Amino acid sequence: MQDFKIDKLVVVGVGLIGGSVAAALKRGRLVGHVVGVGRSRANMQRALSSGVIDAIEQDLSSAARGADLVLISVPVKQTAGVLQQLRQCVADGVIVTDAGSTKRDFAQIAQHIFGSAAKYVVPGHPIAGAERSGAAAASAGLFSGKRVVLTPLPDTDAKAVERVASMWRACGANVIQMSPEHHDAVFSAVSHLPHVLSYTLVEMIASRANAQELFSFAAGGFRDFTRIAGSSPEMWRDICAANADQLLRDIDAFQQALSQLAGHIRAGETDKVEAAFAAAAQARNAWVSGSK
Amino acid sequence: MQDFKIDKLVVVGVGLIGGSVAAALKRGRLVGHVVGVGRSRANMQRALSSGVIDAIEQDLSSAARGADLVLISVPVKQTAGVLQQLRQCVADGVIVTDAGSTKRDFAQIAQHIFGSAAKYVVPGHPIAGAERSGAAAASAGLFSGKRVVLTPLPDTDAKAVERVASMWRACGANVIQMSPEHHDAVFSAVSHLPHVLSYTLVEMIASRANAQELFSFAAGGFRDFTRIAGSSPEMWRDICAANADQLLRDIDAFQQALSQLAGHIRAGETDKVEAAFAAAAQARNAWVSGSK
Repeated sequence: MQDFKIDKLVVVGVGLIGGSVAAALKRGRLVGHVVGVGRSRANMQRALSSGVIDAIEQDLSSAARGADLVLISVPVKQTAGVLQQLRQCVADGVIVTDAGSTKRDFAQIAQHIFGSAAKYVVPGHPIAGAERSGAAAASAGLFSGKRVVLTPLPDTDAKAVERVASMWRACGANVIQMSPEHHDAVFSAVSHLPHVLSYTLVEMIASRANAQELFSFAAGGFRDFTRIAGSSPEMWRDICAANADQLLRDIDAFQQALSQLAGHIRAGETDKVEAAFAAAAQARNAWVSGSK
Repeated sequence: MQDFKIDKLVVVGVGLIGGSVAAALKRGRLVGHVVGVGRSRANMQRALSSGVIDAIEQDLSSAARGADLVLISVPVKQTAGVLQQLRQCVADGVIVTDAGSTKRDFAQIAQHIFGSAAKYVVPGHPIAGAERSGAAAASAGLFSGKRVVLTPLPDTDAKAVERVASMWRACGANVIQMSPEHHDAVFSAVSHLPHVLSYTLVEMIASRANAQELFSFAAGGFRDFTRIAGSSPEMWRDICAANADQLLRDIDAFQQALSQLAGHIRAGETDKVEAAFAAAAQARNAWVSGSK
């Protein structure tokens, strides 16, 4: 962390993520002035009165004046608009980073909008806190021990990457770098596909004539399996669109694996069914005990 | 509950389910004498010293002498063997019931082995407590507010059904009756299929070259989605075998629903993707708030 310090931080979208970054930096006395930019008056007031931000700005160009670093943590659909505005007002060398769940789309849009100035744009993805939202849920400890993935492009400025990495480390996070392509492949498998499967199962059951009876017999296993099917439909629509090609490949791979298992069940190959389940149970339990 | 009382209860397999039934009936002073039959000496001793059972028997025919009711709560694969032994030793009119997760197979085996005496065999399935196992986990309150499904056949003795129902109600459970076929169709959708999907996803990820990296980025949503993939591979192998035809139909329906969603993602039909997710989220959240 050494001499890391931000004089003026602009947080565009003071929700759980943006609010928690601001709170963590403030707790560590690592930021001079935090300006919040956001649509919801009530949410921004809450962030101001709880001391997460020092000032509210409606206008991004006023907010960005003299900024060191701009953190974009708005819903993915609004990101392009924010980048477009920032391109008009932000001085050369001001670092811009984001917190979106997909990274190829963000990197591409940033390059398209910023051109050569995109070298100060550092795509990022903190792996934390999908369940709650809003500034009220923000907490200085949200990122403690969590991972943040940064996906710089070959021409991204190395010092800009290091500065964003330092910001996240100052929030208590472990920072990992990988390409945007690799990021999207990893999260397609461990996050986007599970969401799609969970949504699909619940919708399939909900659309049956005896849906109410079926739900009435669903128990704890079903509850856990389907928790992610309660996630924001808009957010996950956008993630599916942004990562469509990777996700479609994983859906395909999953369907093949499921067909193979169904074949074993159909053929009465109970040893193969058990072997598949045992491999999964072992991997799952090893992961859980390792990640504690 | 009125005048419900069992003089002598035999529990074959004193694990979580069998032990908790005995504990609940003892707490309510609704059982005179509980004989436990089981393989694991240590487990049986634990049940005896904690007062869940009054006596240990290795020999089923000795245990069954003078019994009113025999509860079979062994792994599904051992059930046929237990029924075979019981057929030799149990007096006419003694009620036999079970606690297995699939009901067509149990009903069929019971009819095959018991013939006309199968009218005193009442297939049952308590919907509770898959996570822990063993007598040490047994608790008198396990079934409180939970549901128990009984699946009598047309020629099952009505008084035998009522007696088993009374036993479960005395444990605090709500008792529902349906046919074995309907039972297996319901649980294929809300339990067996989710297990298969969760196992399949974890095995697919575990078999990839970068499995370790993938698991390292898995977060809370993945953890919940895959909790049931940590379940006993033997138990779920047997459930898949016992309910193969229903389960294969549901796997097929799921594959179709997933293909349809993939088609929407591929075609960029974001409105249809969102509509599917929204239907699922709404159903899921309505279920959770209704089942609290």
